[in-house]
Amino acid sequence: MNKKLKVVTIGGGSSYTPELIEGFIKRYDQFPLTELWLVDIEKGKEKLEIVAALARRMIHKANLPIEIHTTLNRREALVDADFVTTQIRVGLLDARINDERIPLSHGLIGQETNGLGGMFKALRTIPVLLDIVKDIQELCPEAWLINFTNPSGMVTQAILQHTSFRRVVGLCNLPINMHLGISKLLNADPERVRLELTGVNHFIYATDVFLDGVSVLDRVLEIYSKLGKEDVISMKNFISMPFSKSLLYGLRAIPCPYHNYYYFTKEQLETELDEFSKGCVRAQRVKEVEKNLFEKYKDTSLDVKPEELSLRGGAHYSDAACNLISSIYSNAGDIQYVNTLNNGTIKDLEDDEVIECACIITKDGPKPLNIGKMNRNIRGPIQMIKGFENLCIQAAVTGNKDIAIAALNNNPLITSDELANQIFDEMLEANKEYLPQFFKK
Amino acid sequence: MNKKLKVVTIGGGSSYTPELIEGFIKRYDQFPLTELWLVDIEKGKEKLEIVAALARRMIHKANLPIEIHTTLNRREALVDADFVTTQIRVGLLDARINDERIPLSHGLIGQETNGLGGMFKALRTIPVLLDIVKDIQELCPEAWLINFTNPSGMVTQAILQHTSFRRVVGLCNLPINMHLGISKLLNADPERVRLELTGVNHFIYATDVFLDGVSVLDRVLEIYSKLGKEDVISMKNFISMPFSKSLLYGLRAIPCPYHNYYYFTKEQLETELDEFSKGCVRAQRVKEVEKNLFEKYKDTSLDVKPEELSLRGGAHYSDAACNLISSIYSNAGDIQYVNTLNNGTIKDLEDDEVIECACIITKDGPKPLNIGKMNRNIRGPIQMIKGFENLCIQAAVTGNKDIAIAALNNNPLITSDELANQIFDEMLEANKEYLPQFFKK
Amino acid sequence: MNKKLKVVTIGGGSSYTPELIEGFIKRYDQFPLTELWLVDIEKGKEKLEIVAALARRMIHKANLPIEIHTTLNRREALVDADFVTTQIRVGLLDARINDERIPLSHGLIGQETNGLGGMFKALRTIPVLLDIVKDIQELCPEAWLINFTNPSGMVTQAILQHTSFRRVVGLCNLPINMHLGISKLLNADPERVRLELTGVNHFIYATDVFLDGVSVLDRVLEIYSKLGKEDVISMKNFISMPFSKSLLYGLRAIPCPYHNYYYFTKEQLETELDEFSKGCVRAQRVKEVEKNLFEKYKDTSLDVKPEELSLRGGAHYSDAACNLISSIYSNAGDIQYVNTLNNGTIKDLEDDEVIECACIITKDGPKPLNIGKMNRNIRGPIQMIKGFENLCIQAAVTGNKDIAIAALNNNPLITSDELANQIFDEMLEANKEYLPQFFKK
Amino acid sequence: MNKKLKVVTIGGGSSYTPELIEGFIKRYDQFPLTELWLVDIEKGKEKLEIVAALARRMIHKANLPIEIHTTLNRREALVDADFVTTQIRVGLLDARINDERIPLSHGLIGQETNGLGGMFKALRTIPVLLDIVKDIQELCPEAWLINFTNPSGMVTQAILQHTSFRRVVGLCNLPINMHLGISKLLNADPERVRLELTGVNHFIYATDVFLDGVSVLDRVLEIYSKLGKEDVISMKNFISMPFSKSLLYGLRAIPCPYHNYYYFTKEQLETELDEFSKGCVRAQRVKEVEKNLFEKYKDTSLDVKPEELSLRGGAHYSDAACNLISSIYSNAGDIQYVNTLNNGTIKDLEDDEVIECACIITKDGPKPLNIGKMNRNIRGPIQMIKGFENLCIQAAVTGNKDIAIAALNNNPLITSDELANQIFDEMLEANKEYLPQFFKK
Repeated sequence: MNKKLKVVTIGGGSSYTPELIEGFIKRYDQFPLTELWLVDIEKGKEKLEIVAALARRMIHKANLPIEIHTTLNRREALVDADFVTTQIRVGLLDARINDERIPLSHGLIGQETNGLGGMFKALRTIPVLLDIVKDIQELCPEAWLINFTNPSGMVTQAILQHTSFRRVVGLCNLPINMHLGISKLLNADPERVRLELTGVNHFIYATDVFLDGVSVLDRVLEIYSKLGKEDVISMKNFISMPFSKSLLYGLRAIPCPYHNYYYFTKEQLETELDEFSKGCVRAQRVKEVEKNLFEKYKDTSLDVKPEELSLRGGAHYSDAACNLISSIYSNAGDIQYVNTLNNGTIKDLEDDEVIECACIITKDGPKPLNIGKMNRNIRGPIQMIKGFENLCIQAAVTGNKDIAIAALNNNPLITSDELANQIFDEMLEANKEYLPQFFKK
Repeated sequence: MNKKLKVVTIGGGSSYTPELIEGFIKRYDQFPLTELWLVDIEKGKEKLEIVAALARRMIHKANLPIEIHTTLNRREALVDADFVTTQIRVGLLDARINDERIPLSHGLIGQETNGLGGMFKALRTIPVLLDIVKDIQELCPEAWLINFTNPSGMVTQAILQHTSFRRVVGLCNLPINMHLGISKLLNADPERVRLELTGVNHFIYATDVFLDGVSVLDRVLEIYSKLGKEDVISMKNFISMPFSKSLLYGLRAIPCPYHNYYYFTKEQLETELDEFSKGCVRAQRVKEVEKNLFEKYKDTSLDVKPEELSLRGGAHYSDAACNLISSIYSNAGDIQYVNTLNNGTIKDLEDDEVIECACIITKDGPKPLNIGKMNRNIRGPIQMIKGFENLCIQAAVTGNKDIAIAALNNNPLITSDELANQIFDEMLEANKEYLPQFFKK
Repeated sequence: MNKKLKVVTIGGGSSYTPELIEGFIKRYDQFPLTELWLVDIEKGKEKLEIVAALARRMIHKANLPIEIHTTLNRREALVDADFVTTQIRVGLLDARINDERIPLSHGLIGQETNGLGGMFKALRTIPVLLDIVKDIQELCPEAWLINFTNPSGMVTQAILQHTSFRRVVGLCNLPINMHLGISKLLNADPERVRLELTGVNHFIYATDVFLDGVSVLDRVLEIYSKLGKEDVISMKNFISMPFSKSLLYGLRAIPCPYHNYYYFTKEQLETELDEFSKGCVRAQRVKEVEKNLFEKYKDTSLDVKPEELSLRGGAHYSDAACNLISSIYSNAGDIQYVNTLNNGTIKDLEDDEVIECACIITKDGPKPLNIGKMNRNIRGPIQMIKGFENLCIQAAVTGNKDIAIAALNNNPLITSDELANQIFDEMLEANKEYLPQFFKK
Repeated sequence: MNKKLKVVTIGGGSSYTPELIEGFIKRYDQFPLTELWLVDIEKGKEKLEIVAALARRMIHKANLPIEIHTTLNRREALVDADFVTTQIRVGLLDARINDERIPLSHGLIGQETNGLGGMFKALRTIPVLLDIVKDIQELCPEAWLINFTNPSGMVTQAILQHTSFRRVVGLCNLPINMHLGISKLLNADPERVRLELTGVNHFIYATDVFLDGVSVLDRVLEIYSKLGKEDVISMKNFISMPFSKSLLYGLRAIPCPYHNYYYFTKEQLETELDEFSKGCVRAQRVKEVEKNLFEKYKDTSLDVKPEELSLRGGAHYSDAACNLISSIYSNAGDIQYVNTLNNGTIKDLEDDEVIECACIITKDGPKPLNIGKMNRNIRGPIQMIKGFENLCIQAAVTGNKDIAIAALNNNPLITSDELANQIFDEMLEANKEYLPQFFKK
């Protein structure tokens, strides 16, 4: 008989869940899951049941003894959990639509990770995650929390700075996408490749690339500097332009795709303003994709993850999560890229800040490989964005508008103190329901 | 009979020189100057003689035994100097006109201190200053070099990083203007006020303000947050908007006027593009002012610093220089704000980087008052700009275009890698004569 | 009429008080003291009244309107104080006799500052000082606390780490003695000399010496390396040997006299064991001196500080205190050597540790001149002693014996874990009355 | 046919070589060695041939195609080597006898790693290793240098600080002994155990212990605190006493056996003085063991590593070396404990200092797992010893006696500046032949 092994997924009704299920099925040998609890809120009830039904069909097909539970009662689910994953979206996609539309209406990008949108996502999400952690500390204090709710780095840092809970790891699909993309450029099996990643969530650079343990950074720089617009490692959310040869060699590092927001701000803004003028921003398209996905999911003959999910923009997210969970569980000691406490790994950031970097994964959590001082060519922007994140987290926890305005002014995408104040007020109003910390007496 | 006390001013033909003369006359008791050597290049010969003649009239009026020498031979002048000041402009105002016009022609600000213009000024100026230092080390190694050639912080850092010369201090008129401006807002004699300044040249914050030794930062924040557009501490070079109350309280620091470029990028850009469309940028207006000043200077009845000089934009520059020279000479131990080696003063910047901060001034040079860790609300932008400066200095010394492009991409005022490359190439061409390091085989 | 200006001296019955009175009389013009409260405990009542009577005679002779109050009620005295000084000795000289005799009975030095004796003094004293600070925060939160109770550095650090009170400065007479001693060796008026001191209380090095603002370290090293046994800067408490020329040049720094304990451990131990075998340790001699002093003080014809006080071993202590108080009061901006929060001044120590260094003295307290990285030749020992201090403070606050044993084992004067345990147990028993924190259930 | 895979062992005539041979034989599958070059000096020629003959017999028995070469010409051997190992002893055992006898004759311990003896070993050895590196850089720049010549940490740091060669790893048998010892105490297969080691060579602490990935430090502390004198993890070279329970819990770390020198200085000194008075120090006993070993080795019927080698004191040394070489070669990614550049791994030591810590081993060398700030309970002594090492290295490279005297005075085992000078002079004389750097004009 199986020993209990329980995973709780908060935001279980997400369209990503089938990928998670697929991940657990694939890794069943190393990670013999016995029960998966999908938790959601009242508003997500319908989706939750659709997803759960698909999950059960997938498991049935795989012929595995995994129970799927659904509940709207988070505390019920958490009791004695071994792992908790979070994939929630406070305010649903409508909130993201505001995050994009309001800034664009003032001529600014509403970047959803470390821009205006990202800040509001942090303001909405952090208090909820802190509440979840409170429940975990009470109901399953030995569980590992695998957070892949964005902004994943800020959320993880908020938990580590504002609670005594330590068993949290932040996850993002960006590193694994860079890993796969660079492996492909090298024509190499991803297993043979290891990246040194330096930076913070959605703002990382590959500062070294090892093929079979030997640095091939020079080769990667050369390949990168010759990529055409079609070949670049890109994400669904934004334009991806080839970085200039001079930029790449000047940095001696490979920027992540999100750096398009900073190194091609002008082009990105023009594209978004153009879409906006046509009435449709990215979040609205995502909403459409989601709707179609759930139509698919309802199909009772479907018992695998549908191909269309990969269009959703979060490719490899859930797979990365399963990988991480499985390695913690089995004390694997393999290298993965996660968000974890800096604690001196990068010497030019504070010890209590969260970074995204290569770690060996053990039962005691991720253990970062030391990075040391950053090369000076990338240090400034990373420190600047981390400064923005720190202020966002502080604003989320305190509900202090001044701190939020300082955050925005310190962000290169926001080009006017006056606009920062205007947009903030407008977005605060639009998010009123989700930001009680700003409306306390 | 007077002991020899010799000052050499490189770029002596500058329109600023009369303020310097006035400064030496005012401080003659503490600093009994015996000979002042004004050095310039062939192109500046006429201006040099005009200025020297005015200087002699001023000294004659003050009835002081100070000799004024002029020469085009720098090495002749430097022999046994006690102090050397530099106020040169490589490429003259025409270079600055390019620095402003070319970026604007592509829709970007050509900021002359830590933007595109500032980078090109650094590229042109640093090699010349390194040459001057070479001469000083040979001809007057015990002299103090007071650099107020912009970008003053980068130039000072380049000297400290790329030579073994240590007796250099960088000066800017921005701190003294903040000191005077804040004193005025406090209705207090400037003598009673001390600022804690944190940051780098043209990018400093007043992180504390002491009145008679007691912190009045809260009071200053309150006053600042109520200033109208007319009351703000402003510079001649750019627009000055009131920072929002939220920004000030969020930062818990007073940004310097140059922060207008970053906190009001949009408004500054609009203003400059408007001027540009009308065919006239700031540098062109400065050129006009200069021309008029020299007409004045020629007037042989003039024997004082003319009022019009204060319109020039460099108010208090030369006065600050005289003050510094006099305090070093007399081991005064008073507090002044200068550019000097960080050496741990600000913990979040590197030891070998130059910062602008409060120092006690001794015969052994400036000794910084410790600052420690920066408050997190201002740390990010300061580190980002210092990162930009580091790359500019490296580019200036090596002539490496890749490093220059990386610098530009890491600067928040440059919003496109593609534009960065285009503008750089165009400016490189325009500055060909002054940038031999980029055209070596 | 005078504005009230009130000083409270806790441990007012100390034999040092007449020096303090003399100090206030000398500085009356800058610091117009109106009332001095001398506070002591029941056991010290008689001495308190003797000292107070002498103080009144001194003030009467000086013809100044300063009131002297005595009380056994600390809280009564503290109300609305402007400055508080502490010069207490928990357990009186008898405790110090134990601090010396018990270690020596096991063959180890009982060093009273950062050795075995110093640790027990810290264990006895820190809790009392934390209580005093609690009273200050309630009764006179704007007062400055000038602590010269030893171990002064540890006490100051304990207050800064374990309370929210910030207006505390630790004082020691060692720096001023080094300053005067080095000035004398240079044949220079002390006013012309400035030291760069690096280190922690009773473990400092002069890492530079400036005469009229110019470094004369080389000259001082040369003079020092030629000193005979009679010429060295010495203290009353221990032997003082000339440091070898190689040591001085190898360190490129002048160790303080207390370094005799570390650089001449063998010789110091032999001397102390010899004294011990003859039945008399330093503390016992001090007790004798004290007794004689109080006989003097009783003489109602005495109205000045008696010469004999200088034999006591704490020369310049009280004078340094008056100097500091007067400079804080008048926002003098002069340089003094005090114990204050490191906050990055020395880069190789932690921000929350206390160091002893040169500061400018302002109404907002001492502002350290930046030191930066320590030269590597002195870094190791300073870090080691600071490590010992950290553990002592932690042990004093928690009553954790394990931490105390770790502290002793990390101290170079304690050469055996087994002895450390034995001596600790014996001293704990002897100090039972004063160390309740170690006897809680 | 086999691809060439060449190892060069400098000091090949060492008695340790058979363990090395055994190691290569065991790992032949992962590391298909084709040629092993044993290099020695003229004086060691006889031993070299004895060892080589034994090596050939061992290989013959194992039936492997490994060629054994011997040479007295280092440069001949190095050409195109893949790995170089060094196990030399400059001055042979006679030098070590001096290292122990001279200090003891003055009443001090001559500790051979980071005491007086260790310093002289460093002074003799570092210049030779720097020469070897020069040859490597010329003849086989892509080779990895595995240094297990003591003092291994100092030698490694000297190479990294004073050459541009980066492919060096320092090895010691202490970590592997701690690993095995702690595994045994836990009754666990060593494969299941991972240590977090913090410190420098011969001065490390186990700051955490993981069993199957879960921290069991508390359990290990408890076990350790109950060990009797017979059970402690000990080395052959010195006494090993049980650390007191208070010390262990106070440190919250397991000191390495060499800490006996510091935590039981008194007992160690008494034991050594006792041996010395009887005319025989450790090095003399080692010499005896060596002699007997070589008698064994000569036996042409011997074709395995003889049991007696384990008495020699360097158990697991060569095995650790083979393990490391094999993992680098195969890019294994397993965790081993080595001496490597700190580069921020331990935040409280300098970037350019060498530490001993857990690393994953890759073809690009060891990659340290981040440690971050040291716990304050062990920080002081580690920083102090690293300070001693820095000065030793500097003295070895410059031949500056002053620096050497400063080093000795900063070491807790040397208790008198006067003795330091006397002993140094005497040892310098005794080592004259091997310390030319101190006798340059």
